[in-house]
Amino acid sequence: MNLILIDPAELIGKIVHVHDRRAKHIVKVLRSEPGDVLRVGLFGGKIGRGKVLRIEKKYPFSVDIEVCLENNPPPKTPVDIILALPRPIMLRRIIGQISSLGVARMHVINAARVEKSFWDAGVIASDNHKEQVCQGLEQAIDTIPPQLMFHRRFRPFVEDYLPTIINKYSTCLYADPGSNKTVAEYFNDPPEKVIVAIGPEGGWVDYELTRFHEMGFSDFSIGPRILRVDTAVINIHGRIMAAMKTCR
Amino acid sequence: MNLILIDPAELIGKIVHVHDRRAKHIVKVLRSEPGDVLRVGLFGGKIGRGKVLRIEKKYPFSVDIEVCLENNPPPKTPVDIILALPRPIMLRRIIGQISSLGVARMHVINAARVEKSFWDAGVIASDNHKEQVCQGLEQAIDTIPPQLMFHRRFRPFVEDYLPTIINKYSTCLYADPGSNKTVAEYFNDPPEKVIVAIGPEGGWVDYELTRFHEMGFSDFSIGPRILRVDTAVINIHGRIMAAMKTCR
Repeated sequence: MNLILIDPAELIGKIVHVHDRRAKHIVKVLRSEPGDVLRVGLFGGKIGRGKVLRIEKKYPFSVDIEVCLENNPPPKTPVDIILALPRPIMLRRIIGQISSLGVARMHVINAARVEKSFWDAGVIASDNHKEQVCQGLEQAIDTIPPQLMFHRRFRPFVEDYLPTIINKYSTCLYADPGSNKTVAEYFNDPPEKVIVAIGPEGGWVDYELTRFHEMGFSDFSIGPRILRVDTAVINIHGRIMAAMKTCR
Repeated sequence: MNLILIDPAELIGKIVHVHDRRAKHIVKVLRSEPGDVLRVGLFGGKIGRGKVLRIEKKYPFSVDIEVCLENNPPPKTPVDIILALPRPIMLRRIIGQISSLGVARMHVINAARVEKSFWDAGVIASDNHKEQVCQGLEQAIDTIPPQLMFHRRFRPFVEDYLPTIINKYSTCLYADPGSNKTVAEYFNDPPEKVIVAIGPEGGWVDYELTRFHEMGFSDFSIGPRILRVDTAVINIHGRIMAAMKTCR
């Protein structure tokens, strides 16, 4: 926890009272004392300092903090993601990871090789992934959650939704282990904004590849290895960021 | 498990008898029948096919497989890693991930901001990370484990050991959040082999940065975000692979 993330609703004037895992972290890990200054961020807002006013070091822990929020969070990365719905435990991990990585937008979609039962998972309800989002933001010292959008049907997503957003992107890619191109091949002129589609464990089926191709997406591969979906997401995001050169 | 990984000691002629989580996977996930052909690999050796001869579908599961191993595993990636020892649970995860990613060599070293107690963890004994290695290899359809070397003292590692290996590398890098360079800046002429040093959670101290610098290492940053060490390792590996362009 590199940032104490607070919710706007928790703020009373300039004071926030925390009494959950954040309080425990302040007591047990940071071992703060009254007067100490902590790094604090407002969920969806600015980042700044928080002065410890009062601290209860015995269980149940609680801390009163006076906050001063004046800095902007780090910019989001210019790489948005389309992800075929993975199994729920994997989705939770990925949501935390992309929150850390600074991904602005992730569309989670259906695909032929997505198990139908995954769509019944609780993590898809927006309240049920806020914990992963917050942990990712706290790790990376950010306050702006990624936008997560769930699309339960592949064809309406590709045919109706994708055309409404696609002109925002200068490069559209899909990962395909059968491709013989690397991401680097698409970045001779560094683009401004990228969207990349990453398939389910069993890969995209031909129909899906064709539809992405028709929508202007280009194929690439990161090599012959089959990676876990969370590994693939982090690795592909890094590769595209490196290939774009201009952004860190 | 995209590969049934077997140990040379398990092989009796061309037959292997499995009765652990691999047997459970063959029964429960693959739902194999006698005569079915599975993807099989020999730990440290070749990859090929395995024909199911006999299968016990009730607990305790067991399977007899006749193997034919004739293909080479995928090549290792040309990016070796130096990693400041993270906490044991993180190290376990990273060992699995780098096994999937095809990292050939990882040196785990001490640093000023490494907690001393981490060196007492069981995972450092070589027998205690074979499970993570195997899971990573099974995921990525590989058979060759990464070489893991543990160096308990920073200075002898840098002064005595590093000079004996450094001429194998055309580019030596260390991750430093304070750097204003990206990995892409070092790869105008794609190098053949890279080694990259990734620090502890609190970062490298000045003494360590100086020593790496003296050894010919250059600094880079992947941006202002503080990432979990496992996220950082996967992301940095991807960035360097992309910046090298020639390799997938």
